[in-house]
Amino acid sequence: MTQYQQAIQGVVTDQMRLVAEREKIAPETILAEIAAGRLVIPANRLHLEGIAPDAVKLQPCGIGRAITTKINANIGASPLSSCKEQELLKLQYAVKYGADAVMDLSTGGDLDETRQFLIANSPVPIGTVPIYSMIIDKPIEDLTCDDILKTIETQAAQGVDFMTIHAGLLRSHLPLAGKRKVGIVSRGGSLLAKWMVHHGRENPMYELFDAISAIFAQYDITYSLGDGLRPGCLADASDEAQFAELDVLGQLVHRSREAGVQVMVEGPGHVPYDQIEMNMKRQAECCDGAPFYVLGPIVSDVFPGYDHITSTIGATAAAFHGASFLCYVTPAEHLGLPRPEDVREGCIAYKIAAHAADVALHLPGARQWDDEMSEARYDFDWPKQFELAFDGEKAREIRRRDMAEDADYCSMCGRDWCAMRISKEVTQRVSEQS
Amino acid sequence: MTQYQQAIQGVVTDQMRLVAEREKIAPETILAEIAAGRLVIPANRLHLEGIAPDAVKLQPCGIGRAITTKINANIGASPLSSCKEQELLKLQYAVKYGADAVMDLSTGGDLDETRQFLIANSPVPIGTVPIYSMIIDKPIEDLTCDDILKTIETQAAQGVDFMTIHAGLLRSHLPLAGKRKVGIVSRGGSLLAKWMVHHGRENPMYELFDAISAIFAQYDITYSLGDGLRPGCLADASDEAQFAELDVLGQLVHRSREAGVQVMVEGPGHVPYDQIEMNMKRQAECCDGAPFYVLGPIVSDVFPGYDHITSTIGATAAAFHGASFLCYVTPAEHLGLPRPEDVREGCIAYKIAAHAADVALHLPGARQWDDEMSEARYDFDWPKQFELAFDGEKAREIRRRDMAEDADYCSMCGRDWCAMRISKEVTQRVSEQS
Repeated sequence: MTQYQQAIQGVVTDQMRLVAEREKIAPETILAEIAAGRLVIPANRLHLEGIAPDAVKLQPCGIGRAITTKINANIGASPLSSCKEQELLKLQYAVKYGADAVMDLSTGGDLDETRQFLIANSPVPIGTVPIYSMIIDKPIEDLTCDDILKTIETQAAQGVDFMTIHAGLLRSHLPLAGKRKVGIVSRGGSLLAKWMVHHGRENPMYELFDAISAIFAQYDITYSLGDGLRPGCLADASDEAQFAELDVLGQLVHRSREAGVQVMVEGPGHVPYDQIEMNMKRQAECCDGAPFYVLGPIVSDVFPGYDHITSTIGATAAAFHGASFLCYVTPAEHLGLPRPEDVREGCIAYKIAAHAADVALHLPGARQWDDEMSEARYDFDWPKQFELAFDGEKAREIRRRDMAEDADYCSMCGRDWCAMRISKEVTQRVSEQS
Repeated sequence: MTQYQQAIQGVVTDQMRLVAEREKIAPETILAEIAAGRLVIPANRLHLEGIAPDAVKLQPCGIGRAITTKINANIGASPLSSCKEQELLKLQYAVKYGADAVMDLSTGGDLDETRQFLIANSPVPIGTVPIYSMIIDKPIEDLTCDDILKTIETQAAQGVDFMTIHAGLLRSHLPLAGKRKVGIVSRGGSLLAKWMVHHGRENPMYELFDAISAIFAQYDITYSLGDGLRPGCLADASDEAQFAELDVLGQLVHRSREAGVQVMVEGPGHVPYDQIEMNMKRQAECCDGAPFYVLGPIVSDVFPGYDHITSTIGATAAAFHGASFLCYVTPAEHLGLPRPEDVREGCIAYKIAAHAADVALHLPGARQWDDEMSEARYDFDWPKQFELAFDGEKAREIRRRDMAEDADYCSMCGRDWCAMRISKEVTQRVSEQS
């Protein structure tokens, strides 16, 4: 039985217990949230057990707005750059810098081998977009229903924890995409659109939804319902195409739950800052509270090279208004394949968004970390500050440019002009005088 | 007469006209906003004329919520690092990467010489915090009213366009600051607090406010009313101390206007994301719509080394909810004095915040830039993308890691899997079929 099916029956599983411990809340809350469809634990049974005797076992991770915001890092080889070890390095960077989940979006090299290698080495849930494997060395037009199910079954048996399935993009939506400034920017979405116009048939992922659900139920794989029609620029945000697909995703959430399968829903992308709250609320309503997994969103199109920042602004707003899972964007977005250093920058930016949202949402204990840092600052306890800093190495490196690490002031104001030092004297004098 | 006095009399000045041209709105709107106190043009007459025959002349810049969001870069030498040429380099980086104004916060080296040198080389308004110059080589306790006015007069005569005056922090507020986790984190605020407890007297900046206003009116210098009690950590945000000072700042806004002096108000600092909207609205109400000049705010305390990102999230929210002037924070914040590369990173992050807010506020024409970029993307017009990118150099550098610059695809998906390429085929087929 899946986590969802057990939750419905009131059974607290080991996974629920582990998630509850990590989140420091009651297992019963986790159970209730899963049963309501508002929380998922993407955990393929095989990855939980370890897919080989020496393989790393999955540490279960919950995703839902009742608990801390989670972040995902996309990695993967491309036809222009493929090397298993390079992808492992990206996985390790991602985990080191706080990714709660990693998607292997490889489209180059030996996809099966890379995926297996990453799952065997990953303590965090691994997601994929299985359509990529279905069309290696063949045109999308040749894809058959049999190929689809076989590939999904193969990846399921490898231990993949969640899969993006673009089942909400229907034939009737395609004319809507034609009205856009930049059309379809989802790789999976565009491939399926091409298949539909070629065959004059409905989206096969939609047609095969129940068969896919049956496979997912068997392994307890979580749906990540792909948004093939996510906007690819500010001008296309919140348009008819996007929301037409969202309505279908909402129906699929219910069909997924009926099949006993955990489900989350993917979202944009590129959204002006003022439209983020509305987008989050609309998804929650359409999708009956299923966890919302957003890509950014970036809030301006004119800063290539800095889209980790542009999107962190959107991601914080998204998480504050309801998204529970943030897919990072790296500085390489719109320009090329991310390298390990881009993975690092992207993860750190998204940890900022996730934590800032958790603090803003008053999640129990979220601000304690900030308070401890503030106390260490007021105490001029630099070693403690570096220990508490999310990236202590970087902080130490900047400080060491000018100063001995343990001096009791910094190079910004120098010793005598340090506001906090003066402030302490003032406070003492004020309390003596009163 | 100051811009404010002329606006009150209905006179459209050259400065108003220039600002209107830059903002592509009617000069009458600029005049009306200045007359209402909601917009300022910080422009010392001397800087406008050029402070020496070969000096750079100020290009007037408007600050107010009716026009585009502006950003400020803080530079300045410290006792630990002082070199005039290094500060000029920072000024040049700041202007190149979009700073609309620059503050010289030097506390080391020859302050008068550095300031004069920067003003002579700056096309953007230069701001200062004159209290720093007042206490070089002497303890704050020895500061006299005469010193204060003389120093302000000296800086005014050098061509400074706006000055931070911490006149809102009163003796009665000091016990409130004592309750905080990190006390007073404003350098100017802490120095004045020390003076007050030593002399048992009221804040001299408050006492001298009318005399300072008289100097400002003469040169048309704009007040930047300093927030000596801005919170220095999330835990201290929106506390009694902060808002007690804000009430006084509101009174000073009126006194400043009565003296014919343009005025803006400084704000936090460190604020949890969920408190930003409330802070912006409260300032607008307390300060009768005077432009709000915020420092960040950063939305978490635990990411030293990345506070340009942490604060850009807060700055976007602040600008969206009412702030019109954003003081950048660099990656060196809380760690040391920023270097030129930090100035660059800080400015770019803040241009993102400013532009994202302008788009979200639907400022006329703001999104056109994004739309042009999106069109260039859909056209695979890479040279155009680099031309439109805010930092085309950086974007080009990332692209060149993997690809020839003019290839018609990128290394993320490769040629055949490019969603936009497939999307175009789909759109063509759909229109043929219908």
